[in-house]
Amino acid sequence: MEPVLFYGVPHGCSFGSIVALEWLGQPYRLCRIEMLAPKDERYLRINPKHLTPTLLMENGEALGESLAILLNIAARDLGQRLGFLQGTRAFDRLNSVLAFLHMELHGAFAPAWTAYKLPEDATKEKEMLRNLAREQVAKAYVHVEHLLSSSAWLAGDVRTVADAYLAGIARWGEDLRLFDLGKEYPRLYKHLQKLEHDKAVIFAHAIEDAKPTTSSGHFLGHVTLDDLQPRLAA
Amino acid sequence: MEPVLFYGVPHGCSFGSIVALEWLGQPYRLCRIEMLAPKDERYLRINPKHLTPTLLMENGEALGESLAILLNIAARDLGQRLGFLQGTRAFDRLNSVLAFLHMELHGAFAPAWTAYKLPEDATKEKEMLRNLAREQVAKAYVHVEHLLSSSAWLAGDVRTVADAYLAGIARWGEDLRLFDLGKEYPRLYKHLQKLEHDKAVIFAHAIEDAKPTTSSGHFLGHVTLDDLQPRLAA
Repeated sequence: MEPVLFYGVPHGCSFGSIVALEWLGQPYRLCRIEMLAPKDERYLRINPKHLTPTLLMENGEALGESLAILLNIAARDLGQRLGFLQGTRAFDRLNSVLAFLHMELHGAFAPAWTAYKLPEDATKEKEMLRNLAREQVAKAYVHVEHLLSSSAWLAGDVRTVADAYLAGIARWGEDLRLFDLGKEYPRLYKHLQKLEHDKAVIFAHAIEDAKPTTSSGHFLGHVTLDDLQPRLAA
Repeated sequence: MEPVLFYGVPHGCSFGSIVALEWLGQPYRLCRIEMLAPKDERYLRINPKHLTPTLLMENGEALGESLAILLNIAARDLGQRLGFLQGTRAFDRLNSVLAFLHMELHGAFAPAWTAYKLPEDATKEKEMLRNLAREQVAKAYVHVEHLLSSSAWLAGDVRTVADAYLAGIARWGEDLRLFDLGKEYPRLYKHLQKLEHDKAVIFAHAIEDAKPTTSSGHFLGHVTLDDLQPRLAA
């Protein structure tokens, strides 16, 4: 059976893996995980940390972590140039950009997500955590601006899985009302606008919002955790 | 010229890259960066974020981010099995473990490092940030225990760059006096003890502490930022 991506909603970092799968153009399925609902035992057996995304592969193995999933997707067809051959400078540069996005951009938002979950009256703690996030994320956005000053795409001259990943996580700056990207980070803003016109990005938004949409890749439809039980038990 | 690793002290996450270079057994040099000293303009030109480690490669390109450096080192000789061939399940698993270490373990300490830098009298903020770090790191340590319950090394049956990386960052739990690893995380503790007896780990500690030591790999000595100026200008 084709690979299945478990993606988290709302607005998860799984977004980038959906975009990358669309760009790849090979058959895949999706399984939706509601991250704000109580943890599902069936998903916990697939991902013991109950994080999304996870890629259930053809051999039944489950692969966690966006970075590893994106590198897996890229390696499925290097001809698509979503990633590069191991041992080349382009491979190194992409890994460096992905690691930066993973820890220094994605990770920088963590205190703001913690603040988001604190009770309403914890005003001082909320403010402190949001300030900390803003400071950290600002540094990461500055580096994104730097990367985009020398190349058309985040990891060089071609569109890679790094751009897909960026589309899913850079938006949190406005989701959390920490930044006005258009005013503060014009290159990043322009790059995100360019991505917003991409068919795969439009598709991923519709998937997250559970709206009807058409795949420009090779999406075969949703499956449920129930549907997958025989495959997982095997 | 052979690659040069810029490593940060004190107790940086560069530690893992030194260990991996020793394990690789190919010629390399080191350049020491004092992270608590004022930022050096010469290093800023190499790493605009002034982070360590950076690997200066044979072609003069500078590669940032531990994860990318470790994958680069591993790919230099897949026969050493510090990493695996792109497109294999072992490659995927290692990437997943590295991504987890990078964001969920390394990143989890961030609030505690922020607390460390706050003024003495910010008692309440310090405590809150340390609690947040303890909670996040505890989750990551639990996952390390889980990984070590099913295999002898962090990413499977052989020693990989993930174990090198772990040795450099897992120690922060005790450096920051957040945990008693021996009591709380016995598998992790035992694994770290095993690594502490490794020649490359002993070497990396001595390098960090600026003590005399002998390489069991192919270390060719230190260079300074001044020594590197002709190479960087080229």
